Amino acid sequence: MAYPNEKLSEEKVFKDPVHRYIHVRDKVIWDLIGTKEFQRLRRIRQLGTTFLTFHGAEHSRFNHSLGVYEIVRRIVDDVFQGRPEWDEDERLLSLCAALLHDLGHGPFSHSFEKVFHLDHEAFTQAIILGNTEINRVLSQIGSDFPKKVTEVIAKTYPNKQVVSLISSQIDADRMDYLQRDAFYTGVSYGHFDMERILRLMRPREDQVVIKYSGMHAVEDYIMSRYQMYWQVYFHPVTRSAEVILTKILHRAKALYEDGYPFKCKPKHFYSIFSEKVTIEDYLKLDESIILFYFQEWQDEDDPILSDLCKRFINRILFKYVEFHPTNEQLMRLMELTSLFKKAGIDPDYYLVVDSSSDLPYDFYRPGEEEERLPIHLLMQNGEIRELSRESEIVDAISGKRRTDHKLYFPLDLLNDFSSKRNIKKKIISLLQLHK
Amino acid sequence: MAYPNEKLSEEKVFKDPVHRYIHVRDKVIWDLIGTKEFQRLRRIRQLGTTFLTFHGAEHSRFNHSLGVYEIVRRIVDDVFQGRPEWDEDERLLSLCAALLHDLGHGPFSHSFEKVFHLDHEAFTQAIILGNTEINRVLSQIGSDFPKKVTEVIAKTYPNKQVVSLISSQIDADRMDYLQRDAFYTGVSYGHFDMERILRLMRPREDQVVIKYSGMHAVEDYIMSRYQMYWQVYFHPVTRSAEVILTKILHRAKALYEDGYPFKCKPKHFYSIFSEKVTIEDYLKLDESIILFYFQEWQDEDDPILSDLCKRFINRILFKYVEFHPTNEQLMRLMELTSLFKKAGIDPDYYLVVDSSSDLPYDFYRPGEEEERLPIHLLMQNGEIRELSRESEIVDAISGKRRTDHKLYFPLDLLNDFSSKRNIKKKIISLLQLHK
Amino acid sequence: MAYPNEKLSEEKVFKDPVHRYIHVRDKVIWDLIGTKEFQRLRRIRQLGTTFLTFHGAEHSRFNHSLGVYEIVRRIVDDVFQGRPEWDEDERLLSLCAALLHDLGHGPFSHSFEKVFHLDHEAFTQAIILGNTEINRVLSQIGSDFPKKVTEVIAKTYPNKQVVSLISSQIDADRMDYLQRDAFYTGVSYGHFDMERILRLMRPREDQVVIKYSGMHAVEDYIMSRYQMYWQVYFHPVTRSAEVILTKILHRAKALYEDGYPFKCKPKHFYSIFSEKVTIEDYLKLDESIILFYFQEWQDEDDPILSDLCKRFINRILFKYVEFHPTNEQLMRLMELTSLFKKAGIDPDYYLVVDSSSDLPYDFYRPGEEEERLPIHLLMQNGEIRELSRESEIVDAISGKRRTDHKLYFPLDLLNDFSSKRNIKKKIISLLQLHK
Amino acid sequence: MAYPNEKLSEEKVFKDPVHRYIHVRDKVIWDLIGTKEFQRLRRIRQLGTTFLTFHGAEHSRFNHSLGVYEIVRRIVDDVFQGRPEWDEDERLLSLCAALLHDLGHGPFSHSFEKVFHLDHEAFTQAIILGNTEINRVLSQIGSDFPKKVTEVIAKTYPNKQVVSLISSQIDADRMDYLQRDAFYTGVSYGHFDMERILRLMRPREDQVVIKYSGMHAVEDYIMSRYQMYWQVYFHPVTRSAEVILTKILHRAKALYEDGYPFKCKPKHFYSIFSEKVTIEDYLKLDESIILFYFQEWQDEDDPILSDLCKRFINRILFKYVEFHPTNEQLMRLMELTSLFKKAGIDPDYYLVVDSSSDLPYDFYRPGEEEERLPIHLLMQNGEIRELSRESEIVDAISGKRRTDHKLYFPLDLLNDFSSKRNIKKKIISLLQLHK
Repeated sequence: MAYPNEKLSEEKVFKDPVHRYIHVRDKVIWDLIGTKEFQRLRRIRQLGTTFLTFHGAEHSRFNHSLGVYEIVRRIVDDVFQGRPEWDEDERLLSLCAALLHDLGHGPFSHSFEKVFHLDHEAFTQAIILGNTEINRVLSQIGSDFPKKVTEVIAKTYPNKQVVSLISSQIDADRMDYLQRDAFYTGVSYGHFDMERILRLMRPREDQVVIKYSGMHAVEDYIMSRYQMYWQVYFHPVTRSAEVILTKILHRAKALYEDGYPFKCKPKHFYSIFSEKVTIEDYLKLDESIILFYFQEWQDEDDPILSDLCKRFINRILFKYVEFHPTNEQLMRLMELTSLFKKAGIDPDYYLVVDSSSDLPYDFYRPGEEEERLPIHLLMQNGEIRELSRESEIVDAISGKRRTDHKLYFPLDLLNDFSSKRNIKKKIISLLQLHK
Repeated sequence: MAYPNEKLSEEKVFKDPVHRYIHVRDKVIWDLIGTKEFQRLRRIRQLGTTFLTFHGAEHSRFNHSLGVYEIVRRIVDDVFQGRPEWDEDERLLSLCAALLHDLGHGPFSHSFEKVFHLDHEAFTQAIILGNTEINRVLSQIGSDFPKKVTEVIAKTYPNKQVVSLISSQIDADRMDYLQRDAFYTGVSYGHFDMERILRLMRPREDQVVIKYSGMHAVEDYIMSRYQMYWQVYFHPVTRSAEVILTKILHRAKALYEDGYPFKCKPKHFYSIFSEKVTIEDYLKLDESIILFYFQEWQDEDDPILSDLCKRFINRILFKYVEFHPTNEQLMRLMELTSLFKKAGIDPDYYLVVDSSSDLPYDFYRPGEEEERLPIHLLMQNGEIRELSRESEIVDAISGKRRTDHKLYFPLDLLNDFSSKRNIKKKIISLLQLHK
Repeated sequence: MAYPNEKLSEEKVFKDPVHRYIHVRDKVIWDLIGTKEFQRLRRIRQLGTTFLTFHGAEHSRFNHSLGVYEIVRRIVDDVFQGRPEWDEDERLLSLCAALLHDLGHGPFSHSFEKVFHLDHEAFTQAIILGNTEINRVLSQIGSDFPKKVTEVIAKTYPNKQVVSLISSQIDADRMDYLQRDAFYTGVSYGHFDMERILRLMRPREDQVVIKYSGMHAVEDYIMSRYQMYWQVYFHPVTRSAEVILTKILHRAKALYEDGYPFKCKPKHFYSIFSEKVTIEDYLKLDESIILFYFQEWQDEDDPILSDLCKRFINRILFKYVEFHPTNEQLMRLMELTSLFKKAGIDPDYYLVVDSSSDLPYDFYRPGEEEERLPIHLLMQNGEIRELSRESEIVDAISGKRRTDHKLYFPLDLLNDFSSKRNIKKKIISLLQLHK
Repeated sequence: MAYPNEKLSEEKVFKDPVHRYIHVRDKVIWDLIGTKEFQRLRRIRQLGTTFLTFHGAEHSRFNHSLGVYEIVRRIVDDVFQGRPEWDEDERLLSLCAALLHDLGHGPFSHSFEKVFHLDHEAFTQAIILGNTEINRVLSQIGSDFPKKVTEVIAKTYPNKQVVSLISSQIDADRMDYLQRDAFYTGVSYGHFDMERILRLMRPREDQVVIKYSGMHAVEDYIMSRYQMYWQVYFHPVTRSAEVILTKILHRAKALYEDGYPFKCKPKHFYSIFSEKVTIEDYLKLDESIILFYFQEWQDEDDPILSDLCKRFINRILFKYVEFHPTNEQLMRLMELTSLFKKAGIDPDYYLVVDSSSDLPYDFYRPGEEEERLPIHLLMQNGEIRELSRESEIVDAISGKRRTDHKLYFPLDLLNDFSSKRNIKKKIISLLQLHK
């Protein structure tokens, strides 16, 4: 049998706590899972620093990637198969794109991308197209197959049904991570009737729509998403850990550029610092590597690098107050900055405004910065209608961006009155005004 | 208020996916959790190499330690409090011992202990009694308090009620790990009615007993334990990863002793290799550190170390066949050993017998090697009876040790016929005889 | 020990699928559960005709009443106890009112109340104050105690904390039924983090408030409520069964008043038909009694009564179309009424408009018909704020009444063309216009 | 399309709390569910009097029947379809037999069968073959089809694969009821990995076997079954209610035969009392009818009938003591019988020994009274082995019958010393000896 259709002699089954079982029958999928680039995802946590807030959230991207694959597999094998609007030839491509969509994520992606201007999507593409085990597996299907997989992930693939399965406002990616992250954190949000949503998905000309009778399950999904964003993903304690992480990266880079004599040289970071990172370098990075450096750097002589690493490793996080970017508060921030300097606490590393912002659902606004494809319902009469026109609840929150700003600082340093007692007191008094 | 009784101004609550919430009101407990020695448990997986079999099992010992604490807290606060047989002064000691019982675990404990003759219980004791943040917190309660905590964990503490809560055939440790490991692996075993068992626990003269009406819940717990051991803890694939891990440690030590010029020097291992490890050295070890070395060692020139590390990192595991230590099979093993040598595959590293053995429950057999305190039921008439005398099911499996032996080897190396084709064929044929 | 404080020698525990265990330690509560008036609730389904739509929803009001009691018990014993704002003397009153709040419900309450102008709250009061076993138990606590229980249930009791526990926009009643009805129907709505909400409830001067940190759990609860109303409680198929039930009751009464010679005389209904029902008569009614009559009446000579009973017993329900009370549709309804008459199908029984309407949450609007106490949040600074001022999601749906009208009719009679073929065809054509 | 293959234009889906969704695509199945004989199962509880012990267990046989259908549907559609050993022509027969296997159950079957020598299996057969709506639906498939359905249910059908799906030691019937009854009672037993068992079922020559890798899931199932029998099905309180129910039926029959002038004549029982019941009479019986009589009979003049009915309706149950049929205890029972008579309490109705007995699993013992087909495992090498030869746990409990005897009596009557004080005291003293 040709490789694209080759089946394993016996179906492989992964026990998964979220979807119960993950089924693999295609030899291609099995081979992809066995590549070292895919196995590397075991060493990258799905939720970065969130485990410092929700101790259960220690799960890896390997987990999530299998989950997204399984959801797409159920859609194409149990729901789409045999429907005239669906092209069965797209099946394997959909499965591969689902499995590999997060392949380019590095350790603590969010912070690394921000500090070093990396782009995990570009790395996903590079890994799939580069000289990798992944590429060798995919190329066996056809020489243009790796390219197609990257197009699906980049949303440029012509068949928008396939694209929608992986990236839309109700795609397999989101459906997996909402449930998975809820499961591991232990929060009671994140539940919705995925089985029903999957069963009511229908391929249509250039998209995937959901039958009207699934509207309430979709509403539940949108609400889950909303709650997970604000209760888990944007949790202020998680953001505190991320602020510290970001500052470690900034500090290490600055020291490196200044020729600081590291006791433990940041060899794995060299190409990143110079922003000339290759796939080979990138694939060597994972959270063990990063944590190794952070642990070693606790003993560096530079007090800022050492302090920040101790904070991250031993979870001594920054505290925070609400911050609203009004003129008055910005003035106060300037005053605080100046007081921090006087207190001998570098405000570049120890006084940080962090902002989170989310749009729970949006209908289509062409031309806007972040175009989002809306969720469409398939009415009983065959008509297609945008979700927020039918659902009062979704309409109520549709297009409303919510933003939250917080000001982070190390309360322990300020409470330690061994020096500059008065300045620290003044700082504390200024900060408490924001409470 | 004196420190032992000091309460937090506001109860701290951890969201836990297994027990829903973990409640901390005692300042002591909160301070212990904040120490760096306790935070280190976040970087040590609860189930070692099991995540390579069950991808969900990526949870840390930090998780489990909080869980054991919470179970003991529920017992002492919700069930024992106010009962004349229970000494309320033992409350805090019980909570501390529960929280800290696994403190001395290192990365991949099982393999490290076997290879380097370490003992995590000795390290637990050393950390609690040594110059550590943990010790400083505990000493505030009383100068002999750290010692008492170690006695509870070592089972030598006079009040056996406290000891039983942490270490008996139905203790908080086991109740947490069975449920937690089932939760994260996603298996359907591991469920029993803990709430009922806790509610029916009673302190008696020198032990903790369970009211007769909880017998069926206890039976369920024993069966869960049985299933978890054979379905999860002794899973042959997990043991394959552990075999490889063990061989990496052996090889690194042997190379070190031979003066092999490591590209990446095993600095963190020096004191372990010489079996003179200090607490300071030990506390620096965690799974990030180990994985850092394994990743780097993929590029070492020693082919065995490099190959084994690649296997571990990229999950290219050994295959296995059943092995029964009969004369006939031992003869065959000798023959295989000699054939491996001829094939140029070092049998010391690539042909390994691994054995697992468990006793699901045992009544008391004084004087035997591994004395186990039996589970006692409190009958309606006040009498106390040993579990297996009342439960047919437990009686049926009581005292019956089950052992499983497997022979591990790298099938990929044998299937690769680039050299020594005939010898390899012969090996394969010999191995398949065991199937 | 005096009866109000008398504890059972051993706590009684009910296994409950929703709350796991229901704990009873008070002798009074145990005695109330044992009365025949309370046991009668076992024979009255919690959700009336809903089991004809969701087959799992066969649970009784007995179930729910225990659940409401347990929730209040957890609040007063685990959360309120010891707080200065809470008067411990109100504990037993709260528990009794919680347990008994639905005592006056009859079989298929909704329909019976509508047709016969009964009021289950008046019956609850009458049973508690009348010559009943319930009254005898309550009177042992104090001669005015039964009265106080009725006042709590009627919301006139002076201590509004107690009233709020049982009747407010987030009370034990709603929290139990949302979860319980979700559990038994099997829908995926109805989940929210009750444990968190309970733990964050605080007694305040004249109400029960919820700490701000529980706001998202409350949002989840409001959304659950919204989904349960529209997905379960107002399900159009359930309403179809209720329309038929209502019409059976109307018909039986009409026949009785006309002196129709029943084969199976409606003895249990006599006092209801004459609207002079006594407690004794009322307490004899339960769903077995009603179903007995409906089964027997299948064999009555009156074709309408017989047909409607066959429909109810054998689940041959009416179909429905959307109906909007516009002038145009009202004209069409008149035309249909006249066509039904011509077709020989009595429109009084076979052409029915049914409307459902709900307000998911409302802030306080004094003086309006249905005053609802708002949900108040307790902010960190001690301030109290109304929920919809803090929650965007709740604000979005607050005060928005949603109404749904449907027109019900027996499609099977219309599809049966044995007579009046043309008229029936015309009716069908008119009805389909509404689709 | 011919009726046997006719599919509904749109799949019908029932929301089920146990299996989440029950899917119906076959017109035949839909039509069977709509018959009045099948709808009648809504009015018969799955667990008889168990709701008086576990208040959640109010679910009907309608529920369970749909569940068994769904399990068989998943086996034949998702697992067996396409396998050469499976004859696709048996599909619809399997589904119909699964759906209808409990059709002949009457109200409180267990007691009715015992008292009146009825046999629900004979009624199932009679309903399927008789002049019923069920028969009319089945006959459309083929004139011999109803007969075949009865043969499957009676285990005489030649294709033993089909028979095994419905009746074996691991059939769809048991798998549904264990899970369903656990769900509704709320006990923590009853969980096993059905999904795994179903996926590993294989049709073989004359049976259904389970692949070896599912052995542990089967062990779990056997243990669930064991726990459910002793914790739920044989619960002594449930048996108390059944003892009372049985005695009501005995008393009513005796009174009827004696010409007792009932105020509420037992019309629905006439043919049962004379043991000449027809299908028509039988189908009129359901639990509403029975409860109607029991409620009315509370007001009969016969003190025994009235008392027993009050007990059943208001849950005033008999107490019990352990009873072992030793000579000594039988002597004591005779003495008690005589003392009851002296006390004026009829021992025929008020002093009852009830026995429960179960065999958790058995291998095949040809020729024994109750032949049971063993569970067979399909080994990797294709061999078939009986379960208890492979599983130590199952072996340990295999073939071991466990029996429990209890002596039931009305403690309240004995504690009431208004008359015959001394005799009652003596009785109580004799009964307490058994404690």
